[in-house]
Amino acid sequence: MANSDIESRAKDVSEEELFKEFKEHSVAEFFKKNRQMLGLYGKVRSLTTILHEYVTNSLDACEEARILPEINIKLEQLGEDHYKMVVRDNGPGMPEEIAAKALGKLLTGTKFHRLIQTRGQQGIGAAGATMFAQMTTGKPIAVITGNGKKAVQFRLSIDTIKNEPKIMDLSYLTKEFKGTQITAEFKDVSYRKGEQGVLEYLRRTAIANPHAKISFQAPDGEMIIFPRTNTEVPKKPSEIKPHPATITLDELSNMAKKTSATKVSTFLKNDLERFGDMSLRQLSDLVKFDLNKSPSKLTWEECEQIIKAFKQMKFTAPSTEGLVPIGEERIEKSLKKIVQPEFLKVVTRPPSTYSGYSFQIEAAIAFGGNAGKEIESFVDEKTGESQKVFRAEIMRFANRVPLLFDEGGCAITHGVKSIDWKRYGIKDFESSQITVFVNLVSVHIPYTSAGKTAIADEPEILEEIRDRKKNEKGNFFEIHSRGCICLVPNN
Amino acid sequence: MANSDIESRAKDVSEEELFKEFKEHSVAEFFKKNRQMLGLYGKVRSLTTILHEYVTNSLDACEEARILPEINIKLEQLGEDHYKMVVRDNGPGMPEEIAAKALGKLLTGTKFHRLIQTRGQQGIGAAGATMFAQMTTGKPIAVITGNGKKAVQFRLSIDTIKNEPKIMDLSYLTKEFKGTQITAEFKDVSYRKGEQGVLEYLRRTAIANPHAKISFQAPDGEMIIFPRTNTEVPKKPSEIKPHPATITLDELSNMAKKTSATKVSTFLKNDLERFGDMSLRQLSDLVKFDLNKSPSKLTWEECEQIIKAFKQMKFTAPSTEGLVPIGEERIEKSLKKIVQPEFLKVVTRPPSTYSGYSFQIEAAIAFGGNAGKEIESFVDEKTGESQKVFRAEIMRFANRVPLLFDEGGCAITHGVKSIDWKRYGIKDFESSQITVFVNLVSVHIPYTSAGKTAIADEPEILEEIRDRKKNEKGNFFEIHSRGCICLVPNN
Repeated sequence: MANSDIESRAKDVSEEELFKEFKEHSVAEFFKKNRQMLGLYGKVRSLTTILHEYVTNSLDACEEARILPEINIKLEQLGEDHYKMVVRDNGPGMPEEIAAKALGKLLTGTKFHRLIQTRGQQGIGAAGATMFAQMTTGKPIAVITGNGKKAVQFRLSIDTIKNEPKIMDLSYLTKEFKGTQITAEFKDVSYRKGEQGVLEYLRRTAIANPHAKISFQAPDGEMIIFPRTNTEVPKKPSEIKPHPATITLDELSNMAKKTSATKVSTFLKNDLERFGDMSLRQLSDLVKFDLNKSPSKLTWEECEQIIKAFKQMKFTAPSTEGLVPIGEERIEKSLKKIVQPEFLKVVTRPPSTYSGYSFQIEAAIAFGGNAGKEIESFVDEKTGESQKVFRAEIMRFANRVPLLFDEGGCAITHGVKSIDWKRYGIKDFESSQITVFVNLVSVHIPYTSAGKTAIADEPEILEEIRDRKKNEKGNFFEIHSRGCICLVPNN
Repeated sequence: MANSDIESRAKDVSEEELFKEFKEHSVAEFFKKNRQMLGLYGKVRSLTTILHEYVTNSLDACEEARILPEINIKLEQLGEDHYKMVVRDNGPGMPEEIAAKALGKLLTGTKFHRLIQTRGQQGIGAAGATMFAQMTTGKPIAVITGNGKKAVQFRLSIDTIKNEPKIMDLSYLTKEFKGTQITAEFKDVSYRKGEQGVLEYLRRTAIANPHAKISFQAPDGEMIIFPRTNTEVPKKPSEIKPHPATITLDELSNMAKKTSATKVSTFLKNDLERFGDMSLRQLSDLVKFDLNKSPSKLTWEECEQIIKAFKQMKFTAPSTEGLVPIGEERIEKSLKKIVQPEFLKVVTRPPSTYSGYSFQIEAAIAFGGNAGKEIESFVDEKTGESQKVFRAEIMRFANRVPLLFDEGGCAITHGVKSIDWKRYGIKDFESSQITVFVNLVSVHIPYTSAGKTAIADEPEILEEIRDRKKNEKGNFFEIHSRGCICLVPNN
């Protein structure tokens, strides 16, 4: 085709025509049209995603207020693929305007701007559930929330065009109420007892949160209670500053613009983790500018010098104060109770960092008993004995939140599968009767999607799951000197 | 622990303390902190993701203006993990304020509000690339864009706090320039020739877009050209209205509020696909209210009656006017040229719908030649001949855009793997020397993440990939009566 032909065709479409639809859209409209990105697709998955959003918010709220969580969930079937969910917690409650935004406006919350370990972190999930209720049933959700003195109830929907909450029928309660209760109806969802359903989600939540009491009333009326095995509220995680070992240039440059410090030296000492006078002396030898200058005057190139220097320096690992792992003893107790393995080994590794964010890995391995996933069971024709076929089970958690979906796209799976299991006497990992438990504890989990089902392959996280520091081939646990399956934790 | 203890602890944390950090954040801040959700993680993946955003925008822009696309890409290595990318197209160009928003403000664009088949659909990707350039190098991107009469150049960055573009150094060009050229530097990215790198991305783009000419200058100076094998701009896809067979209740209810029609009957006939007088007569027998009422007065319950009735009615499949598949002949030509298989079969299936969105599946299967992925090659000790080990390769496309990542979480993979391949004489699909090609053509692709790497398991899409309509076990292609591997397409 000649060039002039192409040109003449181009004239057929005017600029007005090409750009007449150029518009902005709200984040609520975006996630409504792309609800799959919130994990809201598939009947079983959608129901689990919704419950997950409510339960993580409740657990976070209770712990932040230093309350031992007690969460009651009731699921009622109203029709085919049509359910009513009630989630009640004993948390601190919320003032009405906070509750309205937390549940009715995407991208709001207390968790986004802080480097603090919480389950939720985006301010999207619970408002997404409100949107899904509205989309599938046309109905608002009902909220009751109170702090023990004052309590309020209202119905809530979202104006998706504006991404704003709409409160209806607000009234104040006369009787005492402490906590938050959400009642919502959903269609296009389904309750199953299977691997990725709400019951398995709650079972795993109980394993990783032994201090929480969770009750679940199933649609058939059955009442399932996960009691506490521990009566201590987990230590309150403190805010952790970005760590110099892996902080990004962009983050350092943004922080320099915002700091109240008047010198670069005090800025670094105040605003970074593990950066003291010794680090400062080292740094001043490595950069070509005066560290007494104002941070607001730092150029990108000077920040680059700092980051390059950081890579050559040694820093203490982040303190264990800010991160709150479940703890070896509690994981052991939980897994013994629920998996009843013949062999169990648990390790909470020391903290590390990626992109300036502190994190640590907790890992456990269980053989025998109820470990692994039973996928088939048949009776041997000759002996009459029943035989079972197992698959390895990888239980993934991020800040104690179970991850049930997208196993194949998750750093935990990639890390665990890349371990040379033969060195542990395990010939074929996939078909072993084994449960591997991994909990990523971090001030920021790098999820691959707003649905928060899988962790991105950040190299430092992968390394730490495999624990390659001591051995090129990766050590999930250190192998006992006799080379047998008796594993000893690596620390 | 006694209840009073829990209560007394709760008082330690005041309401002000609990909610002092309650804030909103912009969608740009959100995706900056969660860049993994845009596919911007991993050095190879990040570079492919960025190129993908630019190339899809260029192809869309050219086709919308009825121009045969010619895209020139140059990648230059500036340092370790540091590259400069230049992408130039021969498209219609953009007015400066449109260009600034398209490349510098998330959630803007021409594609979100229309039901029209385009590659991009979210208005996030290209602005995300600008953000990534800025985050990793501190530098804005450089843009030149013109319509052949007027051209402008400027540098552009994003104010992430406000999610607004910042234009710098704007000037008008005196010489003629038609198209758009973007120059941007990125760090923390890496060029590899492997399976998920930019070269493979372009190779697959060329397979699915035989009308595009693409040139790529690699960092080592090598020039790779993918010439056109076809000189026709693909038919212009028309806007397709929602289809009654699968439209959601929520969508119908929203449309009823917005329509200009004054009666429900005319609203349905005007605003839905394939809904005519016969459908109207059928519907009026199935609902309990007057179809002459105003659409703005339709209640949720009445919309529910309509949707229930739709499920009992039969509708013609969506017209093939709105969807533009690549076409059997062109796929065949492309695959023959690039895969050179011994056996090749291609089918473009008729359109179908999910959630009211029209879509159709194109599928191809190739054996032998360069089909499959070679994963190992060794020499037989006895015969001295070289032996190769292959794995099946699934080439996934969405509106002609290659999907290279997250294979395990994609409906195309799930659909293809769930086919009973033994019925085609393929004993072990995974280890066969076979290439399966699937292109999902749709007015809206249900991506699982804003990074657009995988398609959600929407049941209607899965069904159509397997083509279960004719056979419970799923028919990828219809099996020839003799039961041999000679497949005949199913239509």
